[in-house]
Amino acid sequence: MKKPALIMLAIAAPLLNACSGGPNEAAEYRHSIFHVIAWHFGTLGAMAKGEQPFDQAVFERKAGILENLSKLPWEGFQEGTAEGSDALPAIWENRDDFDAKANRFEEEASTLASLAREGDQQAMLDQVGKVGQACKACHDDYRK
Amino acid sequence: MKKPALIMLAIAAPLLNACSGGPNEAAEYRHSIFHVIAWHFGTLGAMAKGEQPFDQAVFERKAGILENLSKLPWEGFQEGTAEGSDALPAIWENRDDFDAKANRFEEEASTLASLAREGDQQAMLDQVGKVGQACKACHDDYRK
Repeated sequence: MKKPALIMLAIAAPLLNACSGGPNEAAEYRHSIFHVIAWHFGTLGAMAKGEQPFDQAVFERKAGILENLSKLPWEGFQEGTAEGSDALPAIWENRDDFDAKANRFEEEASTLASLAREGDQQAMLDQVGKVGQACKACHDDYRK
Repeated sequence: MKKPALIMLAIAAPLLNACSGGPNEAAEYRHSIFHVIAWHFGTLGAMAKGEQPFDQAVFERKAGILENLSKLPWEGFQEGTAEGSDALPAIWENRDDFDAKANRFEEEASTLASLAREGDQQAMLDQVGKVGQACKACHDDYRK
């Protein structure tokens, strides 16, 4: 265990340092994961808007990625980490409602991935709007 | 298609704007995905270093997340996006070598997830070091 431990010290510390800019690690994580989500969701949105040609393989891949990513932001919403971030303190005052909205986003993203595997183009593109609404429902109440 | 299109315009644009700080979208994406990777890998590293008690369920979940995330950074390494980022131009001059190192990271992360599902604690902790070495191999040659 000594060797991997030493390697980890050498690797993980600069890796984490290089990526984090401020004292609020949780906020940095939230910012990053939502940015990654927006990157992938952006492609699906562009297809729904007709800005980018529909591509079944790309859509299916991105929808699968989004389904996985949708589960990841929530561990970054630790109590006491609102300061200096876009997260409103209301999150921790209404945790049940916040969690319900987070779950809805996960469910809509999961439905999108299922529809993408089934391949009904219209249903897929409509579902992109439902995912977007789930994003918005949370942002309206809980983001600065 | 009109309605989701409008919703998407309302949702995706501010979502993307809120998350991106500069003109180099690809660099912002790379920064974000590596930060998310570091967040999850950090927990595994802390267990390997004995800084955090070993927890099979947490390890298995994080290793599974890492396996999925390891596939995501590479689409952000588009030609002509080195400027203003930590990516060295050498990436695009040695693309085959860079891709091989990226593949190695994916493979080591995938092995970690398999070992985590099997549950041999020593093998899992040793493999954390191998993943770290795969990170380092790329950073040594291709990161500022």
